[in-house]
Amino acid sequence: MIARIPILKLRNCLLVSIQWELDDQTALQFQEDLLQKIYETGANGVVIDLTSIDVIDSFIAKVLGDVINMSRLMGAKVVLTGIQPAVAITLIELGIQLEDVQTALDLEKGLETLQRELGE
Amino acid sequence: MIARIPILKLRNCLLVSIQWELDDQTALQFQEDLLQKIYETGANGVVIDLTSIDVIDSFIAKVLGDVINMSRLMGAKVVLTGIQPAVAITLIELGIQLEDVQTALDLEKGLETLQRELGE
Repeated sequence: MIARIPILKLRNCLLVSIQWELDDQTALQFQEDLLQKIYETGANGVVIDLTSIDVIDSFIAKVLGDVINMSRLMGAKVVLTGIQPAVAITLIELGIQLEDVQTALDLEKGLETLQRELGE
Repeated sequence: MIARIPILKLRNCLLVSIQWELDDQTALQFQEDLLQKIYETGANGVVIDLTSIDVIDSFIAKVLGDVINMSRLMGAKVVLTGIQPAVAITLIELGIQLEDVQTALDLEKGLETLQRELGE
């Protein structure tokens, strides 16, 4: 059984909180689910909260970078929240391209950032 | 491996979206996680969204009823959202006590209901 990560819809935004270390299958399933949900709901913003994640491996980092770029292609702006030091280090050291991604301290501030960016 | 349901914190509320049928272990783990999170965060509201659940069995219905009463004991008001017909039937037929629980159409309206109830 593949664990799946619930994706919540709040107004025009999708919220995802990743609270446990992902295995590769779950990460890929999440990527697919998120893009499908953006398509279904027409959401134009996504907050991905990593507060509870203290370390990620290179595969997960790549999937995360990919899903952000894919979401953007589909017209949804992504805000990452709660990035812990080790996660930041992994992302940068692996050269994951996140230059255009907003970040925020927590889910609440992430939502605020997104709504401001989207001009609401 | 027990799948766990992420619990999101937004302001003083916790948000939970149950998007796949729960097995018994996951339901009990959720009960424990939610109560722990209420304790840790001091949240005074919880929205449990069942939009994607079209049927529940008697065990899950009982756990749901229990977790609502337990949350209330801990000082958190619960709003259930997105209850589908078959779920409503199961809850009532099993005599799950939900008289004091607010419901709403979706996550967004659930949050609004909760903030109004909490006088914010």
